[in-house]
Amino acid sequence: MIAPVRWAGERLVLLDQRELPVREIERRYARWEDVAEAIRALAVRGAPAIGVAAAFGVVLAARQSRATTFDELFADIEVAVKGLAATRPTAVNLFWALDRMRRIAEGLRGATPDAVRARLLAEAQAILDEDLAANRAMGEHGAALVPEHARVLTHCNAGALATAGFGTALGVVRAAHAKGRIALVWVDETRPVMQGSRLTAWECVREGIPHRLIADAAAGSLMARGEVDLVVTGADRIAANGDTANKIGTYSVAVLAKHHGVPFYVAAPFSTIDPSLASGAQIPIEERDGAELRRVGAQQTAPDASPVFNPAFDVTSATLISAIITERGVFRPPYRFTA
Amino acid sequence: MIAPVRWAGERLVLLDQRELPVREIERRYARWEDVAEAIRALAVRGAPAIGVAAAFGVVLAARQSRATTFDELFADIEVAVKGLAATRPTAVNLFWALDRMRRIAEGLRGATPDAVRARLLAEAQAILDEDLAANRAMGEHGAALVPEHARVLTHCNAGALATAGFGTALGVVRAAHAKGRIALVWVDETRPVMQGSRLTAWECVREGIPHRLIADAAAGSLMARGEVDLVVTGADRIAANGDTANKIGTYSVAVLAKHHGVPFYVAAPFSTIDPSLASGAQIPIEERDGAELRRVGAQQTAPDASPVFNPAFDVTSATLISAIITERGVFRPPYRFTA
Repeated sequence: MIAPVRWAGERLVLLDQRELPVREIERRYARWEDVAEAIRALAVRGAPAIGVAAAFGVVLAARQSRATTFDELFADIEVAVKGLAATRPTAVNLFWALDRMRRIAEGLRGATPDAVRARLLAEAQAILDEDLAANRAMGEHGAALVPEHARVLTHCNAGALATAGFGTALGVVRAAHAKGRIALVWVDETRPVMQGSRLTAWECVREGIPHRLIADAAAGSLMARGEVDLVVTGADRIAANGDTANKIGTYSVAVLAKHHGVPFYVAAPFSTIDPSLASGAQIPIEERDGAELRRVGAQQTAPDASPVFNPAFDVTSATLISAIITERGVFRPPYRFTA
Repeated sequence: MIAPVRWAGERLVLLDQRELPVREIERRYARWEDVAEAIRALAVRGAPAIGVAAAFGVVLAARQSRATTFDELFADIEVAVKGLAATRPTAVNLFWALDRMRRIAEGLRGATPDAVRARLLAEAQAILDEDLAANRAMGEHGAALVPEHARVLTHCNAGALATAGFGTALGVVRAAHAKGRIALVWVDETRPVMQGSRLTAWECVREGIPHRLIADAAAGSLMARGEVDLVVTGADRIAANGDTANKIGTYSVAVLAKHHGVPFYVAAPFSTIDPSLASGAQIPIEERDGAELRRVGAQQTAPDASPVFNPAFDVTSATLISAIITERGVFRPPYRFTA
């Protein structure tokens, strides 16, 4: 099984996703500051995986702390929560997981530091386990939407690598593949960070899922040729009305799917829904360094003098989304998410 | 001036576009077989530039030939015409230029080999000069469609580098820029060969045209934000009904433009129109090696085991094209091209 985020005794272990598909390198983390840097630098990425990693970051912060009282420890935890929250702005799972960890600590007011540390570790492990269970449930709900001999297009990586394991969008594909329904997965390369070619293709190779890699720009003509039966992607944040932020390019795929009458599904854990935002217009969109477009590895691909616009995400209007698949079932428009 | 294809006394000189934007390297060609390989390997690319290079390839073939009679020379020319025609299937300008050179030779039946060689050189130079003049005329016709403070999106490179000079789509931008109408050019990176980031951005830097580079997948969300006033691209072949083959991804941009009410223009010389094809469905689409998607320079970006679908072009339905800009004026739907 692919386990991109796991706890190993005293350390958080991350499969460094920057090294894939060339090398499988696990890195061990003992300090929350290093976990924050790993999130910022994309060693771990994918909304649910970021949430799980950040939860363990709080565990590490509690273990790093030399506090001898609850209040001292809680102050140290709050510093770490703020530091971890400042890494990436779009995926809500990060804030959700940090808030959950912070509340657990807060609820233990008066407990010994070691008791708090133990409880936080149990909570982070619960977040991880719940994510895995949610993905498997999503897979079952989503697979019911996949017809026989389906040719499925996916963008970015919403696979095991983006979660505690199994995956959201690619979890739906995995579950459908287990039922023999997948004829082909079209894997969008997903520039600029290439999560499609580096990560989704790697997962497909590893699990024997039939797939073909395409340039992002080829998705439209594939749909025009009738070669795509459905699209499924993950999500980084879903507003109360169903508007969905996901990897840059998701919106283009959704418009193309609409134009060609191809169903467009989003798969995400319920924790991706942010009921505090009425619509997608309020979702903050991270802009990343232009260097991501000017170089690939050591290869320069654009003039250094060229300005770059590099938003990491875009927002897909709920009107373009055929259904949202969660562990609690499949939601259809008009979207109303009740707990 | 950027001159990607030029004749220098005894040799064809190509600016090797594979080396841009890192190095400006000119290569000299004395043999038509090497010109064919340069076309195949993308040292020269862009439909009009390929046509010009192929015409000079025929000049080189005539000069390489040791024929002492017209018939011997014409046989050698026909071998070169076939070899040059077998390099790339989609751009019609290649076949158009080769056919024009072949007819010139055929019309000289009975002339001395040296007279044929001289006439072929004059004809290739005429093709080059006419292309440059056509681009400047296209620029004027097209600039009239560009509003003040325009934010123009372009895909691939249809600039000076894709032609004898000045460019088709980017020629329209150049002409509009000279009139002070360009606020910004959005440059699609254009995976997998990155003609946008490597070539169009390089041309913009060199000529001081304000621009920003984006991932191909970002075009849709830019349009949704109202940041694109018009799109202009080149063409590799235009069918009699206006259906247009161009770089993979052009179709997606055209669908997105339609969805957002953004005008979508094609700029191409009249020689790009292939009246022998009723619709775009008949245009042959080149598929290139999957390695283009698995590696960038020395950097591996996808598993070697992942199959790739790598069409170099797609076909945009005439119904998505607001107008086609040629040196003979601007054509509007329904398209009827009469000489």
